[in-house]
Amino acid sequence: MIRNPEVLCKKLGLAFNNPELFTIALTHRSAGANNNERLEFLGDSILGFVIAQKLYKLFPKAGEGVLSRLRASLVNEESLAGLARQHQLGDYLRLGLGELKSGGCRRDSILSDALEAVMGALFIDQGIAACQQWIEHIFAEKLQSLSLDNWQKDPKTQLQELMQSKKLDLPDYVLQTMSGLAHEQTFKVKCTVPLTSETCIGVGVSRKKAEQSAAEQMLELLNKDSK
Amino acid sequence: MIRNPEVLCKKLGLAFNNPELFTIALTHRSAGANNNERLEFLGDSILGFVIAQKLYKLFPKAGEGVLSRLRASLVNEESLAGLARQHQLGDYLRLGLGELKSGGCRRDSILSDALEAVMGALFIDQGIAACQQWIEHIFAEKLQSLSLDNWQKDPKTQLQELMQSKKLDLPDYVLQTMSGLAHEQTFKVKCTVPLTSETCIGVGVSRKKAEQSAAEQMLELLNKDSK
Repeated sequence: MIRNPEVLCKKLGLAFNNPELFTIALTHRSAGANNNERLEFLGDSILGFVIAQKLYKLFPKAGEGVLSRLRASLVNEESLAGLARQHQLGDYLRLGLGELKSGGCRRDSILSDALEAVMGALFIDQGIAACQQWIEHIFAEKLQSLSLDNWQKDPKTQLQELMQSKKLDLPDYVLQTMSGLAHEQTFKVKCTVPLTSETCIGVGVSRKKAEQSAAEQMLELLNKDSK
Repeated sequence: MIRNPEVLCKKLGLAFNNPELFTIALTHRSAGANNNERLEFLGDSILGFVIAQKLYKLFPKAGEGVLSRLRASLVNEESLAGLARQHQLGDYLRLGLGELKSGGCRRDSILSDALEAVMGALFIDQGIAACQQWIEHIFAEKLQSLSLDNWQKDPKTQLQELMQSKKLDLPDYVLQTMSGLAHEQTFKVKCTVPLTSETCIGVGVSRKKAEQSAAEQMLELLNKDSK
């Protein structure tokens, strides 16, 4: 039995002018041609924008690397599926028989896509301001609990603590080159860690800045590898 | 000599309430701490959203795969750098001495980032509607000339033509499994092509749809590999 989408709509605090859009957002491609894939495409980009501008405002001193990591920690399949589960979204999904039997309504990817599709549907129905408000509402708890501790620490400190937590040797920074006139020099520093054979080169107007940049790149590299 | 950013601002058809934001958007990280990285983070997400919603409206029948490929063809480093060059943006960049000497003002990545940062700055200065309007304006030509031919073709046709253009054997589709009741069967088809040893599995409510889905995934795979 497919539950009435109106019930979910109310649970989510939404009221659609065109309820059909909401129903489509809950329709997986396994259930037919008029499914949520296009709305998900749209919702995904809206979510990226809404969270980016929120983080930009919330953390005026965070660099681009920190903002990107914060966003990745908020917007990912697992986190979106978790939000979808909080509202029992899976109970209202429209799936083909195959997906239904294999438990598609509990799968992270399907839940996450449907939640993004709801965002896309809301945008089409009510525009960006309403959509932004709702996204910020359902992400409110996650946004509040973002532990700034970890993000406010500079990259070198973060990288060092990561190595310490794994009982590994500390990162190594080697100055590669210095160039430019005395008052506008450019430093190039190579960072290596025991966790990977890859190295990262940081460039900056001081040795310290070049080291921070190398550490930041290494954190991103390790972050990607662990995904 | 750094040229007056006001001149570029006018060329771009913009007028900032806070011109300082525009100057920051033109400042590469090599030129100091108050640079365009945060604005680029923001602009990148805005651009993704604006183009997504535009494509969603322009191509009401295009599937998510087509929309994603269309967006990737519009929004990429090379295309953004091209737009930046059209407006001589490189002449107005603020770079550190090292980047200046090594021709940073002509580099795709630096030009593309600065253009995204201008979008971020415009959003902060004037909000999403103004920013959307300007992005659609500078992308107008690209949006108009989007060759629909290629995108309207179904994935199987596109994949076949790709193989023919490289004088390779045609794609191979093998039915793997069929499951479900007679009126709601699920088909699983494996697609292989001579270009890669990887295979793609498509699932659909008919054999044809499963093949199209497998072909679409293969196109995406080949697209990723070629980047």
